[in-house]
Amino acid sequence: MQTNEALDAAMQSQFMTNNLWILIAAALVFIMHLGFATLEAGFVQRKNVLNILFKNSMIIAIGLLTYCLCGFNLMYPGFAEDSSGFFAFAGFGLSHTTEAYSAADGTYTYWSDFIFQAMFAATGATIVSGAVAERIKLVPFLLFATLFVAISYPITGAWKWGGGWLDAMGFYDFAGSTIVHSVGGWAALAGIILLGPRAGKYTDQGIKPIPGHSMPLAAIGVFLLWFGWFGFNGGSVLSADPELVSLVFTTTSLAAAAGAVGAFFTSYFMFRSYDLSMVLNGILGGLVGITAGADIMSPTDSIIIGLIAGILIPLAVTMFDKLKLDDPVGATSVHLVCGIWGTLAVAIFGDCDGCGSFVAQITGILAIGAFTFLFAFIVFYIIKATMGLRVDEEEEARGLDIGEHGMSAYNQF
Amino acid sequence: MQTNEALDAAMQSQFMTNNLWILIAAALVFIMHLGFATLEAGFVQRKNVLNILFKNSMIIAIGLLTYCLCGFNLMYPGFAEDSSGFFAFAGFGLSHTTEAYSAADGTYTYWSDFIFQAMFAATGATIVSGAVAERIKLVPFLLFATLFVAISYPITGAWKWGGGWLDAMGFYDFAGSTIVHSVGGWAALAGIILLGPRAGKYTDQGIKPIPGHSMPLAAIGVFLLWFGWFGFNGGSVLSADPELVSLVFTTTSLAAAAGAVGAFFTSYFMFRSYDLSMVLNGILGGLVGITAGADIMSPTDSIIIGLIAGILIPLAVTMFDKLKLDDPVGATSVHLVCGIWGTLAVAIFGDCDGCGSFVAQITGILAIGAFTFLFAFIVFYIIKATMGLRVDEEEEARGLDIGEHGMSAYNQF
Amino acid sequence: MQTNEALDAAMQSQFMTNNLWILIAAALVFIMHLGFATLEAGFVQRKNVLNILFKNSMIIAIGLLTYCLCGFNLMYPGFAEDSSGFFAFAGFGLSHTTEAYSAADGTYTYWSDFIFQAMFAATGATIVSGAVAERIKLVPFLLFATLFVAISYPITGAWKWGGGWLDAMGFYDFAGSTIVHSVGGWAALAGIILLGPRAGKYTDQGIKPIPGHSMPLAAIGVFLLWFGWFGFNGGSVLSADPELVSLVFTTTSLAAAAGAVGAFFTSYFMFRSYDLSMVLNGILGGLVGITAGADIMSPTDSIIIGLIAGILIPLAVTMFDKLKLDDPVGATSVHLVCGIWGTLAVAIFGDCDGCGSFVAQITGILAIGAFTFLFAFIVFYIIKATMGLRVDEEEEARGLDIGEHGMSAYNQF
Repeated sequence: MQTNEALDAAMQSQFMTNNLWILIAAALVFIMHLGFATLEAGFVQRKNVLNILFKNSMIIAIGLLTYCLCGFNLMYPGFAEDSSGFFAFAGFGLSHTTEAYSAADGTYTYWSDFIFQAMFAATGATIVSGAVAERIKLVPFLLFATLFVAISYPITGAWKWGGGWLDAMGFYDFAGSTIVHSVGGWAALAGIILLGPRAGKYTDQGIKPIPGHSMPLAAIGVFLLWFGWFGFNGGSVLSADPELVSLVFTTTSLAAAAGAVGAFFTSYFMFRSYDLSMVLNGILGGLVGITAGADIMSPTDSIIIGLIAGILIPLAVTMFDKLKLDDPVGATSVHLVCGIWGTLAVAIFGDCDGCGSFVAQITGILAIGAFTFLFAFIVFYIIKATMGLRVDEEEEARGLDIGEHGMSAYNQF
Repeated sequence: MQTNEALDAAMQSQFMTNNLWILIAAALVFIMHLGFATLEAGFVQRKNVLNILFKNSMIIAIGLLTYCLCGFNLMYPGFAEDSSGFFAFAGFGLSHTTEAYSAADGTYTYWSDFIFQAMFAATGATIVSGAVAERIKLVPFLLFATLFVAISYPITGAWKWGGGWLDAMGFYDFAGSTIVHSVGGWAALAGIILLGPRAGKYTDQGIKPIPGHSMPLAAIGVFLLWFGWFGFNGGSVLSADPELVSLVFTTTSLAAAAGAVGAFFTSYFMFRSYDLSMVLNGILGGLVGITAGADIMSPTDSIIIGLIAGILIPLAVTMFDKLKLDDPVGATSVHLVCGIWGTLAVAIFGDCDGCGSFVAQITGILAIGAFTFLFAFIVFYIIKATMGLRVDEEEEARGLDIGEHGMSAYNQF
Repeated sequence: MQTNEALDAAMQSQFMTNNLWILIAAALVFIMHLGFATLEAGFVQRKNVLNILFKNSMIIAIGLLTYCLCGFNLMYPGFAEDSSGFFAFAGFGLSHTTEAYSAADGTYTYWSDFIFQAMFAATGATIVSGAVAERIKLVPFLLFATLFVAISYPITGAWKWGGGWLDAMGFYDFAGSTIVHSVGGWAALAGIILLGPRAGKYTDQGIKPIPGHSMPLAAIGVFLLWFGWFGFNGGSVLSADPELVSLVFTTTSLAAAAGAVGAFFTSYFMFRSYDLSMVLNGILGGLVGITAGADIMSPTDSIIIGLIAGILIPLAVTMFDKLKLDDPVGATSVHLVCGIWGTLAVAIFGDCDGCGSFVAQITGILAIGAFTFLFAFIVFYIIKATMGLRVDEEEEARGLDIGEHGMSAYNQF
């Protein structure tokens, strides 16, 4: 009797610690939305800053509310035993139980589960926001973002994290190199294709660089994203397991550091300049790259993965520019290219007992990529055909801050 | 024997986790002061930025030191059994015991209690700081802030959180919609009335908008405030109780998100523009609104509370402008109006077994409001009559950065 | 049997909480690097902002990678019993064990230890970065930073934290007033001496103030540094011990607050102005000052220590200027002067049973200072003689952003 009391108290204590970590991780993922907002604001022109801040402020709100309305129950529907694992829906709204549904195995409550996953949900739309910046209309974008986070992201997420068909075939994506990051990248790509490049970017005289208006804002964004990634990856352990969480912190940081170094040298050799935007995106590339396997890599593996991700950044930025796919913040290079790389890296370096094979990883990349790209392309296409997607030339030249909002981000300078 | 050892170890472990959460929550509340500083800096004119940063840097210092000197012992005096619960004082300075006074019931130490509460203390003065910005003299403001956080805030706080008369009558204010936020709002209102509006704000031709100088700073402020609110509300559980803390994270986030949406639609219908400052203040309004009942609301309740708070923001901003009460950052709309709304919402939605009745809530709102407004009005009045409260016209036109500090916030632009 | 199960579960739970705190503390120390980046960016001229952001982005990357390569094993070499405790090296690279090597005594894993210490490692170089800003060449600086964090910092760190000779003689430096902060300050001093002042700073007409370009960035930096310091000092408890961690949070905050007040009054009496940069550096001075003894001071002690640190800031800034030692951000005043002060304060106020005597503290200050200054001076000297250390006059006048990077931090203003 007495003994059980002690064991119960000990298990309750483990539950408390596990649950607390999931909540703190949720707060850290939340701050990534400020990271995205400042990064994207820094990388766009001064005349489009208020617009990007407005979009990113609304995206987190839309993401949380739609995840509450339907996203959570689409992503974790509890697939039936005989389900094909492609689609299921557990109904609208949240369970209003206050029972800690995972208390039995000492992990976390229903609310912790919801809020942690909800903070992830808007990330994909935020990635799109940067890529289509400086030319997309506000309300059409918000409409797209709503549909994307409410429907597309949770459906593909369910395939793996909800226990669907990709999970069954051994696809491995620890914290979402594919499920979160390349999903955002594929939707960004669809938007970029349908929107076309910014006026004056690709001219007969060549590619015109359009530098961001504030490097301090961009740097603040990247550091905050790195900070938040401790929650993004660390919280994805789904407990405070000391070995796993501490390993994840280590691999995540080393990959980010190696990404900076990879981008530093590659961009120097390619452009003969010390390019801050490349180093910053190199850090993000390293973070995206390690995300799929942060819990199963050694420090050395994580450095190699981050280094290659960093090397990929200037190469990808150059490639997208050659293809005239205009991405003001480099979101496709960071999240799509390095997201694919990180997912493949699991098959190369990972060791997770029968999962993460090349076949499984490539299947996951292609299936989720195809669904997401098609979903985004169709939604953007319908919006383009009906409401219109792109602001007119005059508004683009004046800037979206005045055009969409009638205000400026900076005043009295 | 052996059994007790295990139970002791388990209880010590729970104590460690509870205490750690209070400390992390204190750090999160601390970062709200950066949120206020950047929000207010962003919403003022370029010529008054250094001044507002200076005030907010001093306020947190003054808040911590005076809370150590007398505030903590005014707010948690340990009312005697037969006390009327209006006023008591446990003496100057902190107990220098290193005993963990709550270790017995597995929660937190004396120091944790102090530092968590001390981080709250300066919040009220920070709210005032924004509302009276761009025309108040520096030293008089700092004097007011010192008296306000050292005396007024802890006295009214004691009425509820210190176990005083409002607590006895069933007033419910979980984390301070009234005790922290509307207290700041009432003092701000007293200051605004005695100061008068900024020159040129209300003219014969109508109300002249004076836009803030940097929307990125304002947005950084709001996201940091939201981030810190996880500690403000989450830490107010006063333990790491998994069910309560995770519920609080969920209700807090959903109310903030709904606040953004409420302000988005309302400001669009009112002004036909997508106004970032309204969305940002809508988020804050949602956060303030949920604060009184974050631990007793369902997700649906919290969305409704946040939505209404968001709707209130453009209405309140318009109302205060009609009354020629000039508040450069909208602090009275956010903290006073939504603070009252949140406290009332407890009576409408809350379910806390005999507490939070309409009578109790309205009594609390009025009693704390009356005391605070009078205190602030009298102190500001005496300062105005002696030292003077407002900078002269020439200084206001040139800006307080040069006038009060002889320096500018930005150089070499 | 059953009983052991309960005790094991309880000890595992304590291990989880302790370890989680070390990891969260590591994340908080990480965000200090954003604090340094924004502080230094704010305090330099507009034309050198991208350069300082670039340096600080690379420093954290270099710090983590070199600490992984050799720093960790230099700093915690496990001195042999009969070792003199001056130098040892446990070999290149990290142990790839996934064993939680400290699980036995319920504290933290090998990875947690590594990542927490690794986040500290780059701090010294970051301090140097600010002091030598606006005139040092990029690649030479990065080379210096690499050698400094890879070799010098871990060797002197090992003397105390690695269990070396200073530890044996009772030198006390809880979280690194000397081991981290004054180490950075000494290296900065060496750099400043070899570089010389910025052009136009010290003229025949007197000392020309060169104000920083953005006070909001500087203020963001200081608040983030304070926020991160909760991890820096709080994590240095190396467990989640409720009494110690909560005491450390309290002493750290009170010292920072008192530093602001000390600098406020002193700078007012010295310069008759309310100087934000002095108050901001006063906060940092208070934080540096309390760092050596944050776990053994009473609140009153910590207020006195912080107050004196704050008073020292304007005095030290004036002194360095009189000596024509040009430090654009005041890093030597904050980290060197207050680092020495905090280390001495342990001998004055501290009570730690036989450690922290004046002899031990002064020996530690001098020995670590001499080694670090000499190391930095020699490395800077060799670099100066070979690659050159300082940009040419024309580049300095145009700014390092264009000179070293061919880009500006701000565009389209």
